[in-house]
Parts: sequence; C-alpha cells; structure tokens
Amino acid sequence: MPLVVRAAVPADVPIILTLVRELAKYEREPNAVVATEALVHDALFGDSNVAYGLIAEDDGAPVGFAIYFFNFSTWLGRRGLYLEDLYVRPEVRGRGVGKLLLRRLAAIAIQHGCGRMEWAVLDWNQPAIGFYKTLGAVPMDDWTTFRLTGPALQDLAATTP
Amino acid sequence: MPLVVRAAVPADVPIILTLVRELAKYEREPNAVVATEALVHDALFGDSNVAYGLIAEDDGAPVGFAIYFFNFSTWLGRRGLYLEDLYVRPEVRGRGVGKLLLRRLAAIAIQHGCGRMEWAVLDWNQPAIGFYKTLGAVPMDDWTTFRLTGPALQDLAATTP
Repeated sequence: MPLVVRAAVPADVPIILTLVRELAKYEREPNAVVATEALVHDALFGDSNVAYGLIAEDDGAPVGFAIYFFNFSTWLGRRGLYLEDLYVRPEVRGRGVGKLLLRRLAAIAIQHGCGRMEWAVLDWNQPAIGFYKTLGAVPMDDWTTFRLTGPALQDLAATTP
Repeated sequence: MPLVVRAAVPADVPIILTLVRELAKYEREPNAVVATEALVHDALFGDSNVAYGLIAEDDGAPVGFAIYFFNFSTWLGRRGLYLEDLYVRPEVRGRGVGKLLLRRLAAIAIQHGCGRMEWAVLDWNQPAIGFYKTLGAVPMDDWTTFRLTGPALQDLAATTP
C-alpha cells in the first residue's frame, strides 16, 4: 500500500477539519476546535489565503496531514516555514508517515528560501520530542510564548489613542 | 515631546535594521543578525511582503519598533497576529512606548479579525514578562518550540523521495 504526500485541495476541507479535531483530542483539548469548514476553506484556498495544507494518504485513504504558513525572522531577514499542525492517525503510526510529511515540508522550506522551520510541541509528548531530536531539531528552551486573546485583547485594543 | 506610533515606510529600512541589531544585542545575541537592508525591504515592502512594521517616534526621533506578521490557528480557523520583534530604546523606557506599540498591535489584530496575538519572550527577561502579564497575556508554559535549521534542514529536504 503506497504512502503518498500531496498538497491539499479544496475538496479536502472536510477531512482536514476531521483530522484537526482528532489532533485536538490527542492534545487533550477536544473542545478547543471552533473552526468551521468555511473558515478553513478561506484560510487555505481563499483569495487572501494565509496557510497551506498537505495530506498523507495510504492507498488513497487520508492518514495524516500538515498545516503550515510562512513566518519571518528579522534576524535572518528572511521567511521561515512554521508548521502549525502535524498529525498522523494512530493506526498508521510507526510507518514513517510523520517523517514523510516533515521531509516534504523541509523541501518546501528550501524551495521558498526559508532559513528555518519551526513548530511547537506539548512538553508531555515525549515520543514526538524524541522523534524531532533525531531529525536534528533543537528545542528553544529559553523562550516562552505569550498569548493575548479574548477580553484582554479587546481591552488593550480599545485603549488605543 | 509627543510620542507617536506609525506604520513603517520604505525609508525606515536603515533605522529598522539598526534597531533590530540593538535588540539582538539586548537579547545577548549581537552576532545573530545576518539580515541586510535589501532583505528587510523585500520582507516588509516587496511584492510578496510577509511582514509589517511599526515605528515609535519621540518628537520625530525613532525610539522603538515592532515587526509583526499574520499566522494561522487551525483550532480557531482564523488568523492571528504574531509579534516577531518589539523593542524600546533604553533611554525612553518607562514612558509607555512599549504599551503604545502593543495597543496599536492589538487594534490591528482586531481590525483583521484575529482571534489572538502571540509573541515569544526570553525566560530571563522578567521585566518584560511582568509587563506582559499586567496586560492579561498568558504564558504557554506547556509548549516548547522546536527549530530545524542549517545542515539538518538541508539534509531532511534532500531525502525527499
């Protein structure tokens, strides 16, 4: 059964949303997904799309996906590839689907002149962390991401002179 | 002396690069900046620009800056604002320049329909961390960013089937 990785197309939006929900459940946040098919379609395939998708298929059946976008490093002065989501269905883990997706992402990063590729991992996900280290990825241990959202974001915006 | 925050324009590229270098020195990575004026110009003002800049001025003199771009959350199904760099020159700290920049960024995030605003902070930068918490920003303590760059990125890309 051949494994293939291909670019996502508009017809993939329903399966992408299904896989996003499976990933959120795996990450112990099953209720965190508020995205809709319309929002995902706009983000990936709309006129001002902001992100891109890859689908991994096993004999035509979707078994994994990746969503990525381009960020920017002022220090490097160039774009980077940011991997927002990477997910492989449990029943096919251990067959190299994750590595196949990451290889394709690395090739896309190089093609686009990116100086680096980054992604965030939950600290308890040691199998993933071990795998990423075998690829030569380095944890940015001395940085913490801060997030401003909801009422706090609204409040700060509202005080703009 | 009035403080103002305005969108960066192409003529700001040299001062932006100067401020980026000052920030890198403050972050104890003085040699990490390999960006050039041409690269910064392309990234902020080129045909396929990927990032945006704000300049803070005190009576016409540049005293701080912010560089940001839009990222994407699959869980929210919408864009977010990612603050790549925020810097205020030491001689004007304590006068609200940082807050003025963050307010403007929050307003831009809301205008663009973003569900959240995020940025990374070095763990030893406690003055900044304390300030961000007063705004209601929350540390994403259970996530670590991994980075793949240089030869490791090239090697992974080269193995793409």
